[in-house]
Amino acid sequence: MSKRVIIIGAVALGPKVACRLRRIDPDATITLIDRDNLISYGGCGIPYYVGGDVADLEGLYSTIAHAIRDKAFFEMVKGINVITRAEAISIDRKKKSLTIRHLDENRDEDLPYDKLVIATGATPVQPPFPGVTLPQVFPVSNLHQAKAIKDMISKGEVENAVVIGAGAIGIEMAEALTDLWAVDTTIVEMAERVLPQALGRNIATIAQKQLTDHGVKMLIGERVLRINGTEETGVESVETTAGTLPCQLVILATGIRPNSELAANAGLAIGKNRGIIVDQCMRTTDPDIYAGGDCIEVMNLVNGQTLLMPLGSLANRQGRIIASNINGRCEQFKGTVGTFCIKVFEMAFATAGLTFDQAKAAGFDPAYSTVAQSDRAHFYPDSEFMYMELIADRRTRRVLGVEAAGPQGDAVKSRVDAIAPLFQYRADVSDICTLEAGYSPPYASAMDIINNVANSLDNILEGTHNPIDAIEFIKKFEAKETRVLDVRSKVQADPFVEKYGDRWINIPQDELRQRTDEIPTDEELCILCGSGPRSYEAQLVLAAKGKNRTLNIQGGYGMIIAVHPPLI
Amino acid sequence: MSKRVIIIGAVALGPKVACRLRRIDPDATITLIDRDNLISYGGCGIPYYVGGDVADLEGLYSTIAHAIRDKAFFEMVKGINVITRAEAISIDRKKKSLTIRHLDENRDEDLPYDKLVIATGATPVQPPFPGVTLPQVFPVSNLHQAKAIKDMISKGEVENAVVIGAGAIGIEMAEALTDLWAVDTTIVEMAERVLPQALGRNIATIAQKQLTDHGVKMLIGERVLRINGTEETGVESVETTAGTLPCQLVILATGIRPNSELAANAGLAIGKNRGIIVDQCMRTTDPDIYAGGDCIEVMNLVNGQTLLMPLGSLANRQGRIIASNINGRCEQFKGTVGTFCIKVFEMAFATAGLTFDQAKAAGFDPAYSTVAQSDRAHFYPDSEFMYMELIADRRTRRVLGVEAAGPQGDAVKSRVDAIAPLFQYRADVSDICTLEAGYSPPYASAMDIINNVANSLDNILEGTHNPIDAIEFIKKFEAKETRVLDVRSKVQADPFVEKYGDRWINIPQDELRQRTDEIPTDEELCILCGSGPRSYEAQLVLAAKGKNRTLNIQGGYGMIIAVHPPLI
Repeated sequence: MSKRVIIIGAVALGPKVACRLRRIDPDATITLIDRDNLISYGGCGIPYYVGGDVADLEGLYSTIAHAIRDKAFFEMVKGINVITRAEAISIDRKKKSLTIRHLDENRDEDLPYDKLVIATGATPVQPPFPGVTLPQVFPVSNLHQAKAIKDMISKGEVENAVVIGAGAIGIEMAEALTDLWAVDTTIVEMAERVLPQALGRNIATIAQKQLTDHGVKMLIGERVLRINGTEETGVESVETTAGTLPCQLVILATGIRPNSELAANAGLAIGKNRGIIVDQCMRTTDPDIYAGGDCIEVMNLVNGQTLLMPLGSLANRQGRIIASNINGRCEQFKGTVGTFCIKVFEMAFATAGLTFDQAKAAGFDPAYSTVAQSDRAHFYPDSEFMYMELIADRRTRRVLGVEAAGPQGDAVKSRVDAIAPLFQYRADVSDICTLEAGYSPPYASAMDIINNVANSLDNILEGTHNPIDAIEFIKKFEAKETRVLDVRSKVQADPFVEKYGDRWINIPQDELRQRTDEIPTDEELCILCGSGPRSYEAQLVLAAKGKNRTLNIQGGYGMIIAVHPPLI
Repeated sequence: MSKRVIIIGAVALGPKVACRLRRIDPDATITLIDRDNLISYGGCGIPYYVGGDVADLEGLYSTIAHAIRDKAFFEMVKGINVITRAEAISIDRKKKSLTIRHLDENRDEDLPYDKLVIATGATPVQPPFPGVTLPQVFPVSNLHQAKAIKDMISKGEVENAVVIGAGAIGIEMAEALTDLWAVDTTIVEMAERVLPQALGRNIATIAQKQLTDHGVKMLIGERVLRINGTEETGVESVETTAGTLPCQLVILATGIRPNSELAANAGLAIGKNRGIIVDQCMRTTDPDIYAGGDCIEVMNLVNGQTLLMPLGSLANRQGRIIASNINGRCEQFKGTVGTFCIKVFEMAFATAGLTFDQAKAAGFDPAYSTVAQSDRAHFYPDSEFMYMELIADRRTRRVLGVEAAGPQGDAVKSRVDAIAPLFQYRADVSDICTLEAGYSPPYASAMDIINNVANSLDNILEGTHNPIDAIEFIKKFEAKETRVLDVRSKVQADPFVEKYGDRWINIPQDELRQRTDEIPTDEELCILCGSGPRSYEAQLVLAAKGKNRTLNIQGGYGMIIAVHPPLI
């Protein structure tokens, strides 16, 4: 008899398992079940649909050849049974039977299985504050909500919106609302920075400035107290710890909760984040039941802990493995290093591994370097500044995290993608100093930023480089707690000297070796250049003369204006 | 006494060693020696200077802060002694003394050293055919030649040019001549394809088409017999095995020869490619003499053999290591996986590891897959087709090589850069199936092309995917040795059916499962779709019905038009 495989959930992982399994096992009976009538869609595309980059909702559930991925498509083209509008109620693991409820008929049915796949996804967290259930408060988790949001905006019903949560979805939705629709949008985020799970302070501040520069209002480190309004009036405002924001639309982007109740009720193991526990072969604690996608916990290969990682990309890779393994192979999904990227208006941000804070929390003793550098050979015409941070453990020199930002998105992503796969091989800082990425002047510098951020960290770990973050410098400088030694040219430095007087000393790089006597020995000075290398060299020139109290502003003036308005 | 360090050669590696060493050892006496008066330049920028992307020659030897990197700069700013127009004549290793000749004074001088660094670079190979020494025959290896070439062209003296050699420099120069100056340019290449050291047939053919499409004439698999002309008339024509090409300028891009005579005469070990042999700490067989850059052989980490790898990027990384090690550390340069990228008009090409032919020659049993896929989520507006090939050993599944091409350069480079670092960890095909690169719709698909090219290769290795290259298909189809099963929609297929009659069968994907009886069992058929996945699925649908003689055209019609004019 042919193998009976039932897959619960038909958004990302479910269809992938079904289609791959059909290809490699023409005889299996494969049934795909979903609560919804819309299936197999690119949920990560919702902000681009709302923002107009994707014109029609169908764009999110069509194939590249413009076929609509609906029940008929899966049955005709793929040879897969599909039951929509049906909820999985319970699993009888002894009998190997799944009970589903047909939602439109209010009828239950038992379906026997040989192998079961749980791909139930996740549900947006609904925070406990009043007003959260008003109809104009939308999470962004399915196409019906996407359509409702876009309908409201396109009818002109939304002048002001509040986005709760500055994670990826919150930011992407804020951009969609602002950029296309000119909706006056405020993001409220409890944490001290945007993308708090993904970025450390330096790179997150660049993202936050990008949002602010494009008109998104940011309430960072603030909390929502209640959403005001009634069923009749609709949403009227959001009350926060920083005041009341009138608005007609609220986007809830406060995280997700894995849909693991079905698995838990069936006695399968659940992790500390409420995701289903699977082994490297994607099996739950019942070897005939697989699970994957947003409802499971995945291993973080850097700190060895499990986490939720709700990404369509991981779901697709896991789905292929589940299908292979149901068909008798033993392919493995080892885990994630948390690689992530996002477009924020005119910049891209990419990251992998742990942030500085996460590295500390995991028991490492992290150090980091931050650099600003051209993304192409500096003589190549369309080169742009890129910003990059590398985090490593001081004791072992093991690389723990990397973050990057810049206007040329693929270039930003390429730097992080080149480093991220090495985390699981426990690469150290020296490995990144010599990391070999493609070099040609239109695409990279001979000493590329990925090598230089490691070289800079190597210098920090070796004790030759004594840095200060641009953000920290600005704070100190504004509090008049430090002076600047500017080693740029006179032309560049003069306006600053004029404005700040003797708080801003200019000795151009080519005069410094001859003028070290002018620098006080007993005073802390922050050294500045355009992007960091000359000021680092100046720090060493001074150190060789016994002037050891300097701090090098990492990333130089390029980094300062990436995180702060210009100082003149 | 302070350490005396002499560095022979001041283009890329030499200045890097000098500057880094000065930073970490303020006391050393560092002397940089070069034959030329122009030093510390970006030689890889020459084609961009000739092609106008870099306006002035100075752009190639200025810092990012626009300081000219000349003798005065190194002495004043960097604290490094510089001797230009001086040739290193001999090394007395016992006495630890270097003899140099001051070229303008015809005077020799002995310089004692504690550590010596050989950074003598490489010299373009001068092929043995007549006329190669005429003054209008230029290699592209220094700034004087660069200037002379640009002067000739900008004076309007060049209507036709011949570039000998279709390696990176030959191609970049051909683009520079054609694109900005509209010089009628022909490339002559002995090998059977362009970039023969870097690319296999499929991706190289895309590059060749890109050159042809932009008006560069290509004589591939042909040889130059002689260059005609006299000192008085200048170059008049190039005679090749395919006829005579009138021209006023010849670019010699036929490879390089390491400048290793000085080292060889001093008794240091030289490798089979005539490069200096160094250990992982960049030391020659004399522990007080280091070498790096274009004059050494580097280890290929994929096949374990040494090779020449003349890239400014490697030179810079090696230079830092040499400086660290002279200062007492033991940093290592382990070798190269041959990562390479190049812009060819409106497309980028990137590669790492071995080509199929190189893998065979190294004793592997290689298999490869080729895919065409959007570089972003297919619903995202500015997505473009990208082409990718992955090569692995059939027995061990070890990944041996990767190649990619596409119009968005950073996106192309990012895919290769993500895979290349894994070669040295002996990653296998499954590792690339699950390789985790940043995912967001503006930058990647949920199942990215890097995963899909590995999935496709996995299918080939597992025996479920029976492919044919687009190039091979075209050959067979034009010879009427095969028919096509086109599983695209009727609208897309109709023009082909009309043109080719019963040699082009159309059964759209959504009808195939119902119409398999129409397909003959005993005839070889090449299956086609837009980019490969639907035709692969069709192959499996047919195989399940016992129709096993099909071949799937890898990369589909997208790949066909990348390597060949459209079939209708």
